[in-house]
Amino acid sequence: MLGSNATALSIIIRLQLTEDASYSDVATAIGEADGDIIAVDVIHASKDNVVRDITVNVRNHEHQVRVENSLRKRNGIKVINVSDRTFLVHLGGKIEVQAKTPVKNRDDLSRVYTPGVARVCEAIHEDPNKAYQLTTKRNTIAVVTDGTAVLGLGDIGPEAAMPVMEGKAMLFKQFADVDAFPICLNTTDVDEIVRTVRAIAPGFGGINLEDIAAPRCFEIEEALRRELDIPVFHDDQHGTAVVVLAGIMNAIKIVGKSMEDLNVVVCGIGAAGVACSKMLLAAGVKNIIGVDRDGIIERGRAYENPMWAWYAENTNPERRQGDLTAAIRGADVFIGVSRPNVLTVEHLKLMASDPIVFAMANPNPEIEPVKAEPYVRILATGRSDYPNQINNILSFPGIFRGALDARASDINEEMKLAAACAIASCVREEELNEQYIIPSVFNPEVVKRVSKGVAEAAVRTGVSRREAVLFK
Amino acid sequence: MLGSNATALSIIIRLQLTEDASYSDVATAIGEADGDIIAVDVIHASKDNVVRDITVNVRNHEHQVRVENSLRKRNGIKVINVSDRTFLVHLGGKIEVQAKTPVKNRDDLSRVYTPGVARVCEAIHEDPNKAYQLTTKRNTIAVVTDGTAVLGLGDIGPEAAMPVMEGKAMLFKQFADVDAFPICLNTTDVDEIVRTVRAIAPGFGGINLEDIAAPRCFEIEEALRRELDIPVFHDDQHGTAVVVLAGIMNAIKIVGKSMEDLNVVVCGIGAAGVACSKMLLAAGVKNIIGVDRDGIIERGRAYENPMWAWYAENTNPERRQGDLTAAIRGADVFIGVSRPNVLTVEHLKLMASDPIVFAMANPNPEIEPVKAEPYVRILATGRSDYPNQINNILSFPGIFRGALDARASDINEEMKLAAACAIASCVREEELNEQYIIPSVFNPEVVKRVSKGVAEAAVRTGVSRREAVLFK
Repeated sequence: MLGSNATALSIIIRLQLTEDASYSDVATAIGEADGDIIAVDVIHASKDNVVRDITVNVRNHEHQVRVENSLRKRNGIKVINVSDRTFLVHLGGKIEVQAKTPVKNRDDLSRVYTPGVARVCEAIHEDPNKAYQLTTKRNTIAVVTDGTAVLGLGDIGPEAAMPVMEGKAMLFKQFADVDAFPICLNTTDVDEIVRTVRAIAPGFGGINLEDIAAPRCFEIEEALRRELDIPVFHDDQHGTAVVVLAGIMNAIKIVGKSMEDLNVVVCGIGAAGVACSKMLLAAGVKNIIGVDRDGIIERGRAYENPMWAWYAENTNPERRQGDLTAAIRGADVFIGVSRPNVLTVEHLKLMASDPIVFAMANPNPEIEPVKAEPYVRILATGRSDYPNQINNILSFPGIFRGALDARASDINEEMKLAAACAIASCVREEELNEQYIIPSVFNPEVVKRVSKGVAEAAVRTGVSRREAVLFK
Repeated sequence: MLGSNATALSIIIRLQLTEDASYSDVATAIGEADGDIIAVDVIHASKDNVVRDITVNVRNHEHQVRVENSLRKRNGIKVINVSDRTFLVHLGGKIEVQAKTPVKNRDDLSRVYTPGVARVCEAIHEDPNKAYQLTTKRNTIAVVTDGTAVLGLGDIGPEAAMPVMEGKAMLFKQFADVDAFPICLNTTDVDEIVRTVRAIAPGFGGINLEDIAAPRCFEIEEALRRELDIPVFHDDQHGTAVVVLAGIMNAIKIVGKSMEDLNVVVCGIGAAGVACSKMLLAAGVKNIIGVDRDGIIERGRAYENPMWAWYAENTNPERRQGDLTAAIRGADVFIGVSRPNVLTVEHLKLMASDPIVFAMANPNPEIEPVKAEPYVRILATGRSDYPNQINNILSFPGIFRGALDARASDINEEMKLAAACAIASCVREEELNEQYIIPSVFNPEVVKRVSKGVAEAAVRTGVSRREAVLFK
């Protein structure tokens, strides 16, 4: 699940001003085009001209062009270059590999490299578990993608997926001090991906699968979980599902309903939809109805799509048939991981009292929030410009921190449930209200509680391989 | 080629002293066992006891045990723990993945991750070359091993190889600001290794193969060089060969001989031996004779071992037969990449005037330096405790720096030759003497000259993909 933002475009315009123009002409030109000046820097000044960098916030690319044109038509102003702050921060990439200690002299060298390192290698050779003490395996995960389902962009390939994976690595480090390294694969073959990840696994303490299209993502995750002794976690499925469950946990406290009695409609039965449903079932929900393009997934019907086949066996106990309208009648909760504008006000009117709507299509939700608000009790989206953002940044850093702290061999259902409870607990009872069911992604309490809950669950379920887990 | 060091063991002894003992008892006990106290730290002090950390240099593990026992037999001294500084520096691994910029607020987040990152992904999707501008590909290489030929330890497996690969990554960063990440493979199958490296290649600007046993290393390197559009370089072969050539270049200046006229014996026809020979042939040497366990590799004879088959076709123009004694008669240069004590004083006496001997078996050379010195003009080894250390730290950082600066698609013979010339040039004419043919690994001039030479050679040979190479 990926957050969206109304204004994300900040540009830097390098201008040359001759005697015919002053800074106030610049400010006027930008103001006329409705641009928002953030900062002004003088780069070079001489008697007859001055070069300035003007940082301007604009709404989108069209707006940027309007601001540029407004400047260009003024006498004495020459636009030298327009850089966009987003592109600037990406120049040369966003992550680097650093040595933890410097190698300044022969003594350092002989400890971190030959000849001293040989004794460390021998110690691990004698007892492979020592890799967790003496190498980066303890704190390092691979962020693996084949670039087939990147953001809302789809199959853009491994090179183009790199900026997202680097961004993810930054978040892992910043939020949870996990060392994450992007591995972008130039194959989309399930067996080849499984073989490749298995081959590179020895140096890693965990595998975060990312932006791999369904249904291959299921097969890959399943095969790797079976074959590897380190946790394998497809974040697009489970990261989102954990945060959704946390949100539902808090939402039902407000409306006074219980998991067991909820009627839930899940719209969009892809990777995220299936994972959310599994998570809700694990949390005690009994009645889930799935809806996709062809309508309700019917119990007992045979589906070729393996996700739908699973869904047909495990949901819809009432054996409902038909479309979203048929599904949503009497529903307490709508969970949308599908596409914009599939949900209407008419649908909302059919829901039970105190409707809870999680409309998480990205970047535009299943229903426009302003349209939905009069008809729902609690609304959550994937966007950062509305309350209750369902953002998996709340889950993946803490989940892997906890799994690594426990030297877990797996991330199982109990660990994911513990993560959801931990996220939900970050909103205190007295703070809880319709506009605040989910903590902020910058709430430092989140990663602490999630990692602790996950590590404890790992110990409880016997997947921890650490003799004494140090709960921080 | 790996340097060795006579004293590399520094231990930290944690002691508890009761009223019966004082620090001078400790100093005496350590002194009696011939230990060298480096530092003393008080960890805890109370009325009836004090805990101290004593840092002591010892010669080897046996010596360490002797120091410990000397302390243990004193009254009032309790040895709590003995840590070794080499192991301490390895705790938790030696490298980490860092974000280049912090993600402190929503604005940062929306630039480095969603939604801003989507535009960067799209730009690369439209023009894949932009991966070099907008991702870490530009500065990042994989250090790939299967753990089958690690240092002198042999086939110790991928986990146990990690400390060496992490050390290598530290050196790449420290010496050349290259981001290197260890990939330790749990397969030793040639096809599987080739497939795996090809699959993970998109995010990397180069591949450094490391500590892969011969003859598989040749096949793997050859296949990957053919299939990938980024440089693939097996450091154990070429890194060593480049430094050997640099040493020979400077050595023959001292003795006044020319490449064309040299008679060279290479002892140990494995990966490094073949690479050194190829490098010398490329530099103009005409007469090389290879010797392995079964004696001289004979021209015209059929060998099953593919390295020996290549060798039989490309060396030994005089068609010599026999053992090392037959090979070395009249030789100007001996290059040993074999095993300890294969070279005798009797062999040296058979060489031409001004014998040049590179005895690089690790950790013990083909002949003990003290034995050889009276009979040779110039001696080089792989050890750091003798003059003229042949250490590939002199080559790999600068070679990859240059290749990445040029966005090279390959590291070809010309680039390697340029690297050798650059290393040789770091010893100025007026400094050059029998004891100083190779610069120190800590000479900062080396990486600058090597990277410049390599990048220029990449442009000259048409493998650079950068429009304007910025020569630093």
